[in-house]
Amino acid sequence: MKNQMQAEAAGTAIAGHGLDWPHLFATRAERMKASEIRELLKLLDQPDVMSFAGGIPDPALFPVAAFGTALTAALSGDSKGAALQYSVSDGYRPLRDWLVTRMASLGVPCTTDNIMITSGSQQALDYLGKLFLSKDDTALVGWPTYLGALQAFNAYEPNYDRLTPLGNRSAADYSHTAETKGGKVKFAYASADFANPTGETLPRSARENILDLAHELDIAVIEDAAYQSLRYDGDEVPPMLALDIARTGSIEATRTVYCGSFSKTLAPGLRVGWVCAAKPVISKLVLMKQAGDLHSATLNQMAIHTVASDGFEAQMAKIRQTYRARRDAMLAALAKHMPDGVSWTRPDGGMYIWLTLPEGFDGAALLAQSLKTERVAFVPGRAFFADGSGANTLRLSFSCASEATIEEGIKRLGRVVRGG
Amino acid sequence: MKNQMQAEAAGTAIAGHGLDWPHLFATRAERMKASEIRELLKLLDQPDVMSFAGGIPDPALFPVAAFGTALTAALSGDSKGAALQYSVSDGYRPLRDWLVTRMASLGVPCTTDNIMITSGSQQALDYLGKLFLSKDDTALVGWPTYLGALQAFNAYEPNYDRLTPLGNRSAADYSHTAETKGGKVKFAYASADFANPTGETLPRSARENILDLAHELDIAVIEDAAYQSLRYDGDEVPPMLALDIARTGSIEATRTVYCGSFSKTLAPGLRVGWVCAAKPVISKLVLMKQAGDLHSATLNQMAIHTVASDGFEAQMAKIRQTYRARRDAMLAALAKHMPDGVSWTRPDGGMYIWLTLPEGFDGAALLAQSLKTERVAFVPGRAFFADGSGANTLRLSFSCASEATIEEGIKRLGRVVRGG
Repeated sequence: MKNQMQAEAAGTAIAGHGLDWPHLFATRAERMKASEIRELLKLLDQPDVMSFAGGIPDPALFPVAAFGTALTAALSGDSKGAALQYSVSDGYRPLRDWLVTRMASLGVPCTTDNIMITSGSQQALDYLGKLFLSKDDTALVGWPTYLGALQAFNAYEPNYDRLTPLGNRSAADYSHTAETKGGKVKFAYASADFANPTGETLPRSARENILDLAHELDIAVIEDAAYQSLRYDGDEVPPMLALDIARTGSIEATRTVYCGSFSKTLAPGLRVGWVCAAKPVISKLVLMKQAGDLHSATLNQMAIHTVASDGFEAQMAKIRQTYRARRDAMLAALAKHMPDGVSWTRPDGGMYIWLTLPEGFDGAALLAQSLKTERVAFVPGRAFFADGSGANTLRLSFSCASEATIEEGIKRLGRVVRGG
Repeated sequence: MKNQMQAEAAGTAIAGHGLDWPHLFATRAERMKASEIRELLKLLDQPDVMSFAGGIPDPALFPVAAFGTALTAALSGDSKGAALQYSVSDGYRPLRDWLVTRMASLGVPCTTDNIMITSGSQQALDYLGKLFLSKDDTALVGWPTYLGALQAFNAYEPNYDRLTPLGNRSAADYSHTAETKGGKVKFAYASADFANPTGETLPRSARENILDLAHELDIAVIEDAAYQSLRYDGDEVPPMLALDIARTGSIEATRTVYCGSFSKTLAPGLRVGWVCAAKPVISKLVLMKQAGDLHSATLNQMAIHTVASDGFEAQMAKIRQTYRARRDAMLAALAKHMPDGVSWTRPDGGMYIWLTLPEGFDGAALLAQSLKTERVAFVPGRAFFADGSGANTLRLSFSCASEATIEEGIKRLGRVVRGG
């Protein structure tokens, strides 16, 4: 009995009490860990918690009626069988055609063969990790960066090195570092606009620097454009893919893979995103999609196409107005309630504001305290750093809270920070 | 100019004419090849081709009205925001609860925590390959087996060894073979009922043999149950997962991972399937799902739940009746029109009949001939063999053709075979 208890305590298997699964799993399984953010999402179910944690759109802004009409239409007439049937792995052609026009409006001339549909941009990140990363290869990412990108890439057992958009490291230095870790640098990943988690936008010069570095290293660039449409102030900065085309003359000569999403604009629950890139990349991704889940849901692609065709810009105008006011409310509340020594970003769009607390603060401990005494939730920043730094940072999302909640919640958070 | 043409002919990159992408791709990308079946699906668009190629359900049998009602309900009232919002990675809880009852009816007592939702069972196969297979590990598969399983597993760079349900090879022999290839045997994969491509069902004794072998090797069993509900004759055989529970006393002590799908019963275009297994497997798969695409489409899971709850058995009765008549028509036509020396399976369910032609026949050449002279399509069998054998085999699907088309098409195919 003592031996059995010891074995159980050590996590090993007992005959009749379950297999020793970890010894059967691939080595990559060791890097699959629970997401702090996802665990936190459970807090949203508690009605007395003021949550600035989840990076989710406000469901009150979803074009529900338009989707209802679109779904009913898809299940009527000639399309009703096709809407529920298997379909091609590259995606619903009318939606891909619509995206050609959309990409052109962003300065990216391309053809339908440069576009494939994915189940959200998260799937694009997973598939791009799968396409580029052999074990021990290196991915360049920001410090901090989107946690979901790290989770997607982790499955392919890469190393990470820090992408510094200011270009203060040489290509040779990056290459050498990757070689000492047993692989090659394969891509630079960056969220260009109103990034998760910082809310910051890469200026044109930083985008050009990343392209320069990628050219010198002869690697790909993965441009995560999930928030690209959510601009509330200032002028648009061309996507890195557009800048790459401006350099090379054609999308077929570029090294940039653009990942778009309808999750932050129309609705995340339908899981529709896209990739736009040179055809050799799209061709391989389509084979991967075929082997991975055959295709994204047919009906959902049809519904997204109808709703986007009928009123994408009107929907964007609506959500921009709401989110702009919430961002302004949060910036004003931070200025009012945060003590000296706390700094934060001032995003031109997106859903996030990033706080940096004085050294010595620990975001996770602050969250525990905040939930206990003030019932306010946010995401501690450390999870967004591939090297585990950033303990004194935290992410606030303003997308789902009313202006009154933002004022009250930030006031409470200010008390927690003062108390910490 | 000559050099450039030579380089282009060799598939290498020219400055300004696109990157040398293959040198940037991971090693696994070399194993991602276009699917013969998917290429063939394009033929379905040609109205004068009689196709027995695609393994797809008849869209005329989809419960379109029920889905319309379910989708409208999901987008009304309290659920309308949630239906379009992000949701949890393990899946929509009411659907998982419904599946607990469904699995119990198949002899698999389990809890909601033993079930996760995937985007079709294809995604389950991809994720299970990802969970178990490190490079050079071995997967045991049938000769032939489901092509989509090979495609899913290929991304993780495994070796394949032949699973012989009759148990004529020792566990030590399998282990030794895997070790000489640089890895370990990780799982045995089998489609237990009306398998794609053969239509054959593993008898209980073969299932027990696979479980015995898996126990001796201490590996997992992946049970692909995509066609399990499509039985037209004979008695149900318990799922391998049920037999495993009967041996071990609890799903938590089993080694079998059951992959189910609504694609062949309700509708494939919504991409909803599930995995049922011990909790340690489900927990890791949920983390993988979170990193891979966050979750399957929320609305689709809600709609599948409503349609399944309201009339799964009635829908099954309808499609069984139709497919049974088509299977009978195809078996009768084969008996009438195939020359001596051709043999075929007599499936108790599913969508497929598997033909074996005399040695020396080549299925791919026969298809080319058949399309040219008789406008009849099928799938040459070789793609289903991990070792590239099986040239003299072919797969016929009876799911999408009327009885009259089946009679005429098999008559034509008989002429092609006689001519070959």
